[in-house]
Amino acid sequence: MDNKIISEGKSRQVQSTDNSEEVIVLHKDNETAYNGIKRATVPGKGVTINAISAILYQLLEKNGVPTHFIKVVDEHSHLCRRVTPIRLEFIVRNFAAGDMTARLDIPTGTPLKKPIFECCYKNDKLDDPFINTHYAIALGISTAEELAEIEHKLGTINTILTAYFLSIGIRLVDFKVEFGRASDGTLLMCDELSPDSCRLWDVETSESLDRDRFRYDLGNVGESYEEVLRRMKNKK
Amino acid sequence: MDNKIISEGKSRQVQSTDNSEEVIVLHKDNETAYNGIKRATVPGKGVTINAISAILYQLLEKNGVPTHFIKVVDEHSHLCRRVTPIRLEFIVRNFAAGDMTARLDIPTGTPLKKPIFECCYKNDKLDDPFINTHYAIALGISTAEELAEIEHKLGTINTILTAYFLSIGIRLVDFKVEFGRASDGTLLMCDELSPDSCRLWDVETSESLDRDRFRYDLGNVGESYEEVLRRMKNKK
Repeated sequence: MDNKIISEGKSRQVQSTDNSEEVIVLHKDNETAYNGIKRATVPGKGVTINAISAILYQLLEKNGVPTHFIKVVDEHSHLCRRVTPIRLEFIVRNFAAGDMTARLDIPTGTPLKKPIFECCYKNDKLDDPFINTHYAIALGISTAEELAEIEHKLGTINTILTAYFLSIGIRLVDFKVEFGRASDGTLLMCDELSPDSCRLWDVETSESLDRDRFRYDLGNVGESYEEVLRRMKNKK
Repeated sequence: MDNKIISEGKSRQVQSTDNSEEVIVLHKDNETAYNGIKRATVPGKGVTINAISAILYQLLEKNGVPTHFIKVVDEHSHLCRRVTPIRLEFIVRNFAAGDMTARLDIPTGTPLKKPIFECCYKNDKLDDPFINTHYAIALGISTAEELAEIEHKLGTINTILTAYFLSIGIRLVDFKVEFGRASDGTLLMCDELSPDSCRLWDVETSESLDRDRFRYDLGNVGESYEEVLRRMKNKK
């Protein structure tokens, strides 16, 4: 198998396989924040993310949410279905955290009456600007039908993940997901699902077990990710 | 009648009347931009806005869109139904213009495949941040039912105004509206509707006939507003 690099992201590399419908997704030890401005290497992070992401993808698949995940290849890599990505990032928020707290003057940790769904235009040059579904349609990025399907999935994913994390003493504060279309047109969740893309707080202490440890220099980035994985493995 | 000032806005003053269900809305000659940072006085502006807004409110009422407007009191003032304002600003966009062009790297004047509706949280301290309907619900500002009703009205208002302005050689690029509830619960369009809250371009020359003349120091602010009114009166 002569794998070629299809794309190289901030913390992932996507490689071709002999099957044009499948790709290898390799999780790197790089950690980044603020759209790549802050960077570091966290030894072992790729392996931990690879394991966490695999468990979460399988959890979603088992509960009826199709994802790009096929199987774990090795401790750094997944075999995944190749998708044409939709150039949108979807964020689901259950509690106020991150940039929304300053923007709306809301204390971090405020519970939201209903989950907030938001979408951003995936465009590094523009710093992934916050838009809304009307923009996504008007700019030809998506359609009303596709966005309705995605919004329905976001609700399902949030319900599944919130319950799962709660069962291991973790509050799912917010998370980011992406979607793509397989060659047969199936809408698949893709990208990743891990403490790099979710805000995860210990239920008892409200301590961050996610990328905020890197963003805000809280220390123990790798250890916190491993703690999430440890709890997930203990549950299985 | 002993009118008391209920609220004093950047370009409007709202006064009480003997009837607790009705208010006087007085249009001032003040012109502001960038959330009040840039200010000036445009002599005669209040009178022009008063006349333009009255014609547009009556046009909408005639076409089945309830507004707060009751009647013109004098050349500076309207008598309006008193409403409890919904703390949201709604923007409808037919062509790319203003802040969205830089944020999304789209040339000014690009026609949009579908009109974009967006909503902002009315909060001067926070600079009226762009949110979405999920935020409005989660923060307790509105409800899904109310927002669906408003979204329907935005479509209707856009259709009516676009056709009207086109008939007087003006392209309705975008506009901002607000809504409130009367004491009997009726949802009413309120605030104002004028070249201060709409982007209006001459169809032939694409020249701005709106507040962008003030924002971008294009000159002839008052004259452009008067030109809009002149065309409106000629049509009547």
